[in-house]
Amino acid sequence: MTQTSPTRYQSFSAATRPEQGPPRLAALRDDMAREGLSGYLVPRADAHQGEYVAPRDERLAWLTGFTGSAGFCAVLPEVAGVFVDGRYRVQVKAQVAGTAFTPVNWPETALEDWLKEHLPQGGAVGFDPWLHTSQEVDRLEAALGPAQITLRPVDNRIDAIWPDQPERPDAPAEAFPAEIAGKTSGEKRAEIAQILARAGQAAAVLTLPDSICWLLNIRGGDLPNLPVVQAFAILEASGHVTLFSEPAKFAALGPDPAITLKHWDEFETALAALKGPVRLDPASAPHKLRMVLEAAGVEIAPGEDPCILPKARKTEAEIRATTAAHIRDGAAFARFLHWFDETAPAGDLTEIDCVRALEDFRAETGAMRDISFDTISAAGANAALPHYRVTDASNAPIRPGQVYLVDSGAQYQDGTTDITRTLAVGEMSDEVRGAFTQVLRGMIAVSRARFPKGIAGRDLDSLARMPLWQAGRDFDHGTGHGVGVYLSVHEGPQRISRVSTLPLQPGMILSNEPGYYREGAFGIRIENLIVVREAPPLPGGDPREMLEFETITWAPIDRRLIDAEALNGDEIAWIDAYHARTVEILRPHLPPDTVAWLERATAPL
Amino acid sequence: MTQTSPTRYQSFSAATRPEQGPPRLAALRDDMAREGLSGYLVPRADAHQGEYVAPRDERLAWLTGFTGSAGFCAVLPEVAGVFVDGRYRVQVKAQVAGTAFTPVNWPETALEDWLKEHLPQGGAVGFDPWLHTSQEVDRLEAALGPAQITLRPVDNRIDAIWPDQPERPDAPAEAFPAEIAGKTSGEKRAEIAQILARAGQAAAVLTLPDSICWLLNIRGGDLPNLPVVQAFAILEASGHVTLFSEPAKFAALGPDPAITLKHWDEFETALAALKGPVRLDPASAPHKLRMVLEAAGVEIAPGEDPCILPKARKTEAEIRATTAAHIRDGAAFARFLHWFDETAPAGDLTEIDCVRALEDFRAETGAMRDISFDTISAAGANAALPHYRVTDASNAPIRPGQVYLVDSGAQYQDGTTDITRTLAVGEMSDEVRGAFTQVLRGMIAVSRARFPKGIAGRDLDSLARMPLWQAGRDFDHGTGHGVGVYLSVHEGPQRISRVSTLPLQPGMILSNEPGYYREGAFGIRIENLIVVREAPPLPGGDPREMLEFETITWAPIDRRLIDAEALNGDEIAWIDAYHARTVEILRPHLPPDTVAWLERATAPL
Repeated sequence: MTQTSPTRYQSFSAATRPEQGPPRLAALRDDMAREGLSGYLVPRADAHQGEYVAPRDERLAWLTGFTGSAGFCAVLPEVAGVFVDGRYRVQVKAQVAGTAFTPVNWPETALEDWLKEHLPQGGAVGFDPWLHTSQEVDRLEAALGPAQITLRPVDNRIDAIWPDQPERPDAPAEAFPAEIAGKTSGEKRAEIAQILARAGQAAAVLTLPDSICWLLNIRGGDLPNLPVVQAFAILEASGHVTLFSEPAKFAALGPDPAITLKHWDEFETALAALKGPVRLDPASAPHKLRMVLEAAGVEIAPGEDPCILPKARKTEAEIRATTAAHIRDGAAFARFLHWFDETAPAGDLTEIDCVRALEDFRAETGAMRDISFDTISAAGANAALPHYRVTDASNAPIRPGQVYLVDSGAQYQDGTTDITRTLAVGEMSDEVRGAFTQVLRGMIAVSRARFPKGIAGRDLDSLARMPLWQAGRDFDHGTGHGVGVYLSVHEGPQRISRVSTLPLQPGMILSNEPGYYREGAFGIRIENLIVVREAPPLPGGDPREMLEFETITWAPIDRRLIDAEALNGDEIAWIDAYHARTVEILRPHLPPDTVAWLERATAPL
Repeated sequence: MTQTSPTRYQSFSAATRPEQGPPRLAALRDDMAREGLSGYLVPRADAHQGEYVAPRDERLAWLTGFTGSAGFCAVLPEVAGVFVDGRYRVQVKAQVAGTAFTPVNWPETALEDWLKEHLPQGGAVGFDPWLHTSQEVDRLEAALGPAQITLRPVDNRIDAIWPDQPERPDAPAEAFPAEIAGKTSGEKRAEIAQILARAGQAAAVLTLPDSICWLLNIRGGDLPNLPVVQAFAILEASGHVTLFSEPAKFAALGPDPAITLKHWDEFETALAALKGPVRLDPASAPHKLRMVLEAAGVEIAPGEDPCILPKARKTEAEIRATTAAHIRDGAAFARFLHWFDETAPAGDLTEIDCVRALEDFRAETGAMRDISFDTISAAGANAALPHYRVTDASNAPIRPGQVYLVDSGAQYQDGTTDITRTLAVGEMSDEVRGAFTQVLRGMIAVSRARFPKGIAGRDLDSLARMPLWQAGRDFDHGTGHGVGVYLSVHEGPQRISRVSTLPLQPGMILSNEPGYYREGAFGIRIENLIVVREAPPLPGGDPREMLEFETITWAPIDRRLIDAEALNGDEIAWIDAYHARTVEILRPHLPPDTVAWLERATAPL
């Protein structure tokens, strides 16, 4: 059943061409000269600093051709640097015109150092203060000051030269049921308002769409993969919210006396009219907001967006809902695995065929709203690239003897999923099975962990790595990221990572996804989502409050890749129990032939 | 062979009496009134901020009766608070006169909050600027300023009223062989001088005796347990050192043109004559030094004592030397264990008997210079106190059915040891064996760890705890501290602890000592010392630089306390290999009957 239908959500064609860049760069330089600028910064970010942006905000891709999810371009009269991280070193070279743009390894090369090198006489570098945070601007200004380089806030120069720039997205907002959220918007607003009141703050300005959607129990369709409405909000300590967006998007929701709808254009005036202190998050709010507040003499209280932590601590209702979404998604994924097992050995499947098939199985649930990110579908050596994204040009056949890695997720109204499995096609080498088993042991160690309150993601990250470390191996990404409920598949602040010292708290959802990548040969990753839970006291245990993880992802882990001899008794017991529970949970949702396949795939080790 | 001889190094009698305190407190208050002080701070620290202090610096014990190794007294006209941490809550009540002194739980109650509560009108609190660091003074001043409480540096008020205060210690210094150190003092001074020169600093002031002794390849006898000479030093960027102490202590070393000896009294004048910038460690240097430098207009460069990190990274020669010391100590300890096994079942041994016996076995090596800390010798419920120190009053008999915990170490010229074993006496309950096995599994996990460069103690701390965490248990101390070579048994900056984010580096020596404590019932701790080593590449491993631990402590781990069923194959293999190597290493140093006992004690699991 090789799929031929186009996918609904993921495209495999190049959206940009290298040739588009040079004339646009020339136009930008003409504009810069008119404006008296020695430089101009084009970030990938929009005013909401999110991972996904609307077409009108794809300024970096429009100018340079580079379509990665992070990076920026610094344009000077003689040179234009495209700053990208390790994920995009190869991609950037294929996407930008080498005659016009110079790829720069970032963060190894800091923007400030690059500017100082290329502007030895100093100068004025323009930037759009809506697209950069105050934290970023302050840091850059401090670093550039001694070199006589100033940052000059200006109206967006790309918008000034982009003739057919798309309009802002205008998808209608929809209500998010309080039964799924577990709290009404009124309850959430009262809770956050109390945080502000206790801090002596008159209001908070919210600029992150997922914070606003969480607070108001709404969702939207303005962006790919992330079901949010684009908006800004002012939450007063009274609990009243003023929303700045396109009011027509909210027509279907009906009026709410606690929420005032205003147009984007009214935001600056409203900010200037505020009585302080106003909480503003220096890590995410556009620098423009600080400029407006300061010009109006409004006192600013720098502080984290007050919705971030409450949003991360899911309610019982949210956990129930996302558990149901994960079972639905698990059943669709099991059908995919069954199909794959029957189809792949013939050797004529491609990476794109698998993306389409998986999307179709999920779509057949009738509940899928979107994919939660572009599926990573990678055969053989492509799997060694942790962030591989298949295109028509890269699309590889999946051959017997290779591993196939699929990292994917969906958005359902009741939850957001993210699952990775690595699958055997044909005979597997001992080397691949050995590495898979090491990755699996790390993943089990995190799954089984029990730990006292106060422990942070950093304290657990080594658990996922020690089996690889013992073999002289490691992987160069974090072990886990936060996940929302019908919100962002990459949600902060919770993480399992060496950079995360925030104590884990009940209700946080995280991924658990160790991996191993052998360049040019193969890649392995196994990923389940887990929820932080209060751990019940154990007989003989201390009177200490402890936490544990509940796994909510249900799908078989490829037994053909497991070297059972390398597992200890606890690990074998975990796998067998996980597999038994997977069958029990998914059975009611699967056709009989898939149940039969699943039973074989999950036989005890 | 119950011992009756007095021990050489450890005393079991109370050095203070509660009654001594009130008249001394009255004298101090009279003095404070004459000086116009509303308060006075009496820290346990001396001018070198070490864990061990000379008798003349036991001001806190002299005033209050409290002899713990950390704490301080804040004396006000109406109240005198004795601030002690969780280790000393019981001890302080027994040692101070409750009519005169009020124990305060610290750090739960901060000094600044306590002062603000008891000095609502504000006032001047005196302190001796030789005994407090600038970091401490700055922090306190910032916190007290708004409450109109000022800190006033004064000459020491205890010294002013202590009629028979002992003199400064005057033990002679001795050379520390360069063959053990692995570097000559000249090489070390050149290395540190280069650090200063690169930082553009003209000199560094050294105030930590173990930094000075390491730098100059000398040792001394001024303090119990820590073989240092008390001194201050100025190291110039030229590599020249001026030492401020009692010159007579250095008579036996002979002259060295690179080292100028001066008297304590000349230190302030020499500081004031320095040309800056002068590196001064705000975390350890007496505040007085900053006052002197500032008054003289000498530029200060705040920075860590430049000897700390190089001292922590032991040379190959140091590791060879301390390995030999650990074998010698292990043989003495094995003789103690053999004696204990034969003697304890009769039921008439006491905790003090064991301290004496162990000290005698070590003394019989002919090489022991000191104990490295007071031996923790604890039977039954006493073992549940991690920092228990036996006295004549607490001395408990060791009864069949109890566990006995012994944590001890010695100073040899070639190394400093620190070992803990928990021993079965008679039949052990499943509960005790279960807990012992959990502690052991954590200790093995650290021993076996292999990890990439960049990993800190914090990243490994969970490994030692996870087997306990899985059982709902934990222990409330760090997993490991740094250890010196014939220097401090508690050496910084390396640690295995949730508070330590410094990357581990080759040559660092650490303890590996998880434990479990059941209040009122039993305590368990197992401790070996380990050295951070470059890990050789493994076949199939990544091209990454990795580290591992080499264990240097050799002594059997009580098999009667191990539940082998709860260990996995890797853990059993580790124990069996460790025991086999212990026999192999210690055999040449033991009498035949102890070898026979050791072979039984280390039979494979």
